[in-house]
Amino acid sequence: MRPSGRDLSEMRAVSIETGFTKHAEGSCLIKVGDTHVLCTATIEDRVPPFIKGSGLGWVTAEYGMLPRATNTRMRREASSGKQGGRTVEIQRLIGRSLRAGVDRVALGERQITVDCDVIQADGGTRCAAITGGWVALRLAVNKLMKTGDVVSDPLVDPVAAVSSGIYAGQPVLDLDYPEDSEAGVDGNFIMTGSGKLIEVQMSAEGSVFSRAQMGELMDLAEKGVAELVAAQQAATK
Amino acid sequence: MRPSGRDLSEMRAVSIETGFTKHAEGSCLIKVGDTHVLCTATIEDRVPPFIKGSGLGWVTAEYGMLPRATNTRMRREASSGKQGGRTVEIQRLIGRSLRAGVDRVALGERQITVDCDVIQADGGTRCAAITGGWVALRLAVNKLMKTGDVVSDPLVDPVAAVSSGIYAGQPVLDLDYPEDSEAGVDGNFIMTGSGKLIEVQMSAEGSVFSRAQMGELMDLAEKGVAELVAAQQAATK
Amino acid sequence: MRPSGRDLSEMRAVSIETGFTKHAEGSCLIKVGDTHVLCTATIEDRVPPFIKGSGLGWVTAEYGMLPRATNTRMRREASSGKQGGRTVEIQRLIGRSLRAGVDRVALGERQITVDCDVIQADGGTRCAAITGGWVALRLAVNKLMKTGDVVSDPLVDPVAAVSSGIYAGQPVLDLDYPEDSEAGVDGNFIMTGSGKLIEVQMSAEGSVFSRAQMGELMDLAEKGVAELVAAQQAATK
Amino acid sequence: MRPSGRDLSEMRAVSIETGFTKHAEGSCLIKVGDTHVLCTATIEDRVPPFIKGSGLGWVTAEYGMLPRATNTRMRREASSGKQGGRTVEIQRLIGRSLRAGVDRVALGERQITVDCDVIQADGGTRCAAITGGWVALRLAVNKLMKTGDVVSDPLVDPVAAVSSGIYAGQPVLDLDYPEDSEAGVDGNFIMTGSGKLIEVQMSAEGSVFSRAQMGELMDLAEKGVAELVAAQQAATK
Amino acid sequence: MRPSGRDLSEMRAVSIETGFTKHAEGSCLIKVGDTHVLCTATIEDRVPPFIKGSGLGWVTAEYGMLPRATNTRMRREASSGKQGGRTVEIQRLIGRSLRAGVDRVALGERQITVDCDVIQADGGTRCAAITGGWVALRLAVNKLMKTGDVVSDPLVDPVAAVSSGIYAGQPVLDLDYPEDSEAGVDGNFIMTGSGKLIEVQMSAEGSVFSRAQMGELMDLAEKGVAELVAAQQAATK
Amino acid sequence: MRPSGRDLSEMRAVSIETGFTKHAEGSCLIKVGDTHVLCTATIEDRVPPFIKGSGLGWVTAEYGMLPRATNTRMRREASSGKQGGRTVEIQRLIGRSLRAGVDRVALGERQITVDCDVIQADGGTRCAAITGGWVALRLAVNKLMKTGDVVSDPLVDPVAAVSSGIYAGQPVLDLDYPEDSEAGVDGNFIMTGSGKLIEVQMSAEGSVFSRAQMGELMDLAEKGVAELVAAQQAATK
Repeated sequence: MRPSGRDLSEMRAVSIETGFTKHAEGSCLIKVGDTHVLCTATIEDRVPPFIKGSGLGWVTAEYGMLPRATNTRMRREASSGKQGGRTVEIQRLIGRSLRAGVDRVALGERQITVDCDVIQADGGTRCAAITGGWVALRLAVNKLMKTGDVVSDPLVDPVAAVSSGIYAGQPVLDLDYPEDSEAGVDGNFIMTGSGKLIEVQMSAEGSVFSRAQMGELMDLAEKGVAELVAAQQAATK
Repeated sequence: MRPSGRDLSEMRAVSIETGFTKHAEGSCLIKVGDTHVLCTATIEDRVPPFIKGSGLGWVTAEYGMLPRATNTRMRREASSGKQGGRTVEIQRLIGRSLRAGVDRVALGERQITVDCDVIQADGGTRCAAITGGWVALRLAVNKLMKTGDVVSDPLVDPVAAVSSGIYAGQPVLDLDYPEDSEAGVDGNFIMTGSGKLIEVQMSAEGSVFSRAQMGELMDLAEKGVAELVAAQQAATK
Repeated sequence: MRPSGRDLSEMRAVSIETGFTKHAEGSCLIKVGDTHVLCTATIEDRVPPFIKGSGLGWVTAEYGMLPRATNTRMRREASSGKQGGRTVEIQRLIGRSLRAGVDRVALGERQITVDCDVIQADGGTRCAAITGGWVALRLAVNKLMKTGDVVSDPLVDPVAAVSSGIYAGQPVLDLDYPEDSEAGVDGNFIMTGSGKLIEVQMSAEGSVFSRAQMGELMDLAEKGVAELVAAQQAATK
Repeated sequence: MRPSGRDLSEMRAVSIETGFTKHAEGSCLIKVGDTHVLCTATIEDRVPPFIKGSGLGWVTAEYGMLPRATNTRMRREASSGKQGGRTVEIQRLIGRSLRAGVDRVALGERQITVDCDVIQADGGTRCAAITGGWVALRLAVNKLMKTGDVVSDPLVDPVAAVSSGIYAGQPVLDLDYPEDSEAGVDGNFIMTGSGKLIEVQMSAEGSVFSRAQMGELMDLAEKGVAELVAAQQAATK
Repeated sequence: MRPSGRDLSEMRAVSIETGFTKHAEGSCLIKVGDTHVLCTATIEDRVPPFIKGSGLGWVTAEYGMLPRATNTRMRREASSGKQGGRTVEIQRLIGRSLRAGVDRVALGERQITVDCDVIQADGGTRCAAITGGWVALRLAVNKLMKTGDVVSDPLVDPVAAVSSGIYAGQPVLDLDYPEDSEAGVDGNFIMTGSGKLIEVQMSAEGSVFSRAQMGELMDLAEKGVAELVAAQQAATK
Repeated sequence: MRPSGRDLSEMRAVSIETGFTKHAEGSCLIKVGDTHVLCTATIEDRVPPFIKGSGLGWVTAEYGMLPRATNTRMRREASSGKQGGRTVEIQRLIGRSLRAGVDRVALGERQITVDCDVIQADGGTRCAAITGGWVALRLAVNKLMKTGDVVSDPLVDPVAAVSSGIYAGQPVLDLDYPEDSEAGVDGNFIMTGSGKLIEVQMSAEGSVFSRAQMGELMDLAEKGVAELVAAQQAATK
């Protein structure tokens, strides 16, 4: 009944290729089905003004989409002169989510910027960006620990994200674009490897949902995140 | 134990003064404690390009904050040359939320723009904006129905929003600024008068939460929204 | 003969509600007929670079209009990405006018920013902004004097502003919007409580005027400013 | 007593070289002492949307200053990404002033854009721009009349502008930069060839002035404008 | 003597992977050594206003660099609010170069936009973008010919580009980043498969060069372009 | 056969009027036929951050065009909010070219900004800007040497630029606008007084060219630059 023929609770195929670019301190190309996101992590010694001198670290994120990542070419944000509302919303979410899994004292006064650039989009780009972004962050932190710049591991728990939603009246896991564009309700669930919640966003465009449905979507999400965390572990071992 | 002395499940005082400005088709000044938001609804015959000719209506929202609505003066967005990420995120939320309560066929091919401008801020401005925005929308639609431009009521169910969160380890309803700035977890719940969910956003900055806590916060939100809907009904009777 | 039925030299009703918002060091909502402007004064320790270290203070102003303050909704300047020419022109005028009544040595090296935001417009918003802006400034300076940060009063003379113009061939005081949009000549007069001139702007759009008419408009303005200064004094006593 | 040795009521030397550039329908380089402004008039068939179909013409103006027109290099507005407040204020003034001398019915539904670019600045650039701008406009209209596109002369009365102010306690005509930067009060007077007023702007930065002083400055201005109009007539004969 | 150990006239390894993304009408990932550029071609029915109705086609290009494509993270152009001068210069070059190989009558009134996004940079990104951009263009045109939308092949001759320069006093082919940053003179040569020149840019930063040196660099470039054209043919066969 | 009646290798008339504006440390109005460019040089003590403390000087350039320098009025870049791609490309070229003739050690840690503003355009504005820009630079450096701020002359060799191209199948020198808009191939050659090359840009819009043609265009350019350098020497003697 799903356009892709998947079961209701079946994720798309996930692959994570680490070291996709050579300059970044950490990088990977994550593929969740036909959604491909390049994630890089950059370590810098400077921190934002509001924590200067605090001894605390910072993790932030930026998100972009190549103009022809989508079915129809979108105008390049650099040429239109500003990041759209959707971009801003997503990159703030990625940053908040990744920070939730970081011990900022252990990280020390430095900043890690995670860039997530969508090479090809087929639904769920923000979730793939968070899941792949954590891998890039993990690899960058590994480098800091190898050099001894960081002693105690600041990444206390993996962070991954997945979507679920009501499609054609049924709760389904990991919506692809054809599902996403038709779904009455969709949610994004950002969770830790130990099953804690970091952020939940459920939204109904021109529709409503019940607490019971909310529970079903959460059940699916827990299953999906567990699979993603396993993929992260495999990639960064 | 709350800075304001309120009980854990106690809302701040709510007042809604309708007709606060004379030009708008609908307007109100909503006060939720010391958070004061001016909401106006403007009816226009044009609709966005993507629904032109569809016969469907559109509801959209914009959000702003006066520079000295806050404790410290913020730079005016008009002078800094763009709306910040937070502004964009909030106004998209308001628009989506209000649309969820609208029968766009009944509204007919016209657009209603709801402007929410924060006169004074003390936490929870986005929730006050949604709750007050719906009142402005209600009043504007009443005008359309009085003139016969709209025949069947397109506002199928009231829409209101409230926050809850974990403050000092306890779930509390309707966070004010001192609570909001200290809360480990906070959520915004947008619901209908009949208790359905439109949007749920729960977020932990540098922290995590459990499904059980999520349930407690939802319980509080249901109580708060019921009180807000009663205030909306009283104001627009 | 005036649309409002007022006499040629009759001002609209004026009210000034002080303390309209709680965060600002000084604030008021001034109403001149149906023109309502919220004015707030913010004290900051920093001054613009060009007077740093001079020991002199600075007073500046910003002006904005809520999108639906007017009969037809105007695009939000924050969303269009810049302040329009009219906004820039008006806020520079407000700043210059208020500074004319300030002893900048007595103020000391600090800056006061006066924000004037039009809640509802019906002609004469720049004059109401100056008159109300001075009240906000007065209240903020009072606070500085109460704490002893400022010893000698830097506000040497009140500042107020009023318009007059030629409407239907007759000189009239305090133009409302229906008059303003039809007037062949209109002027804005910024004066002190002691009757001195700070700024005079008289302008004929597609028309011309004589020195004799200029004198008549000034006579009206002197009467209007005297009434406004009385209202300022009453409000800040 | 004036830095330049001029009498109190003495203008700087004025020269107007017409046809300074070959492409524009009208152009001149006006020199008022060391203030040099290049003015060009461009005729276009399109008019602004708000008068489309009205049969009325439009005259508008833009103003710019080359980066090193001034003693210290100013940042190029094209590179800083926007026109400053002073630029916007001045170009609106030029446009309003020139329109006051135009019979827009006689002009017919077309637009003339007058560009005023300051090549070298020494005080009084806005007045020189208006005076020279009218010459460019005159030449462009002459072309329209020669071709028969316009039959009845739409330029009913010349428009010229001059400054006067209180310098070192004395009223002086046509302030140059050393005077302008020290003057307590300065005014710009835009008048017609027949001695009518179009716009009066008098302003005291950190000072005040009386009605009597206002009269003295107006007297000076009337003398100056008469001389400028004579120079315009000589240049466009 | 070259940092990479290459001979003076030796290109880096070149690979072209076609079909790298699924949505674009043509796409490839071109690798010239460690410089990796993703090129996509998008076919649209609209053309720029200046050729509307002419029956002629248009080819244009945009260029971007991911923030961490370089050794040090660069600010994202979308977030800084505009494309830098270097970006603008490069994308205009790519567009001009590709158009030189296109019969715009045969293409018909449609536009192909070639997006070149640098995934990893190690010198010579503009040349790689042109060479890979032509491949994406070739693939998109193939699609148009397969569907019969285009009958006669508009790609009259392949287009490819290579750099050469004076490094450590010696003429070398295909500069990588360590060479490029030290070279006294560097040139970019855009040529056709049949050995004709489309664009030559030779530039000495803080240095000069002779006509004889210019000839040597051209000789190297001819060799390099021949190899690149062979790689293009192999990839698009 | 050329529209202007010139011989194939004949330059337009060149005149250079130095001291055109009084404030700049160096200035000239260069006229190459009907192309008129005002060039000013500004000396500042600050240098760009990347050479601060290095003891080296910097020369940079900005380029602009007055709105009616061209046959049709162009939108003012200050009002459109950014410099177009063509402007950016040209001003980067001017800066690079002038720097090539400067001994930055001899100049000392200061910056000279050369502003080139096109008053009237008829083809070849970038070449006129470089040739005139060098004259303004020469005059400014003369001032530094007269005051003793600079001891050894940092201008090692004059810099001038000229265009040549293939027009109607023939190589011609110094293209004017009618030729430039029809030319299949055009090149800009920036050279030193001693005949060395600084930058060569040859470009074919929708066409191609051979190495033999390239040589012919270079021959013409060498002749043109020699004449321009003579004019520079005459003007700055």
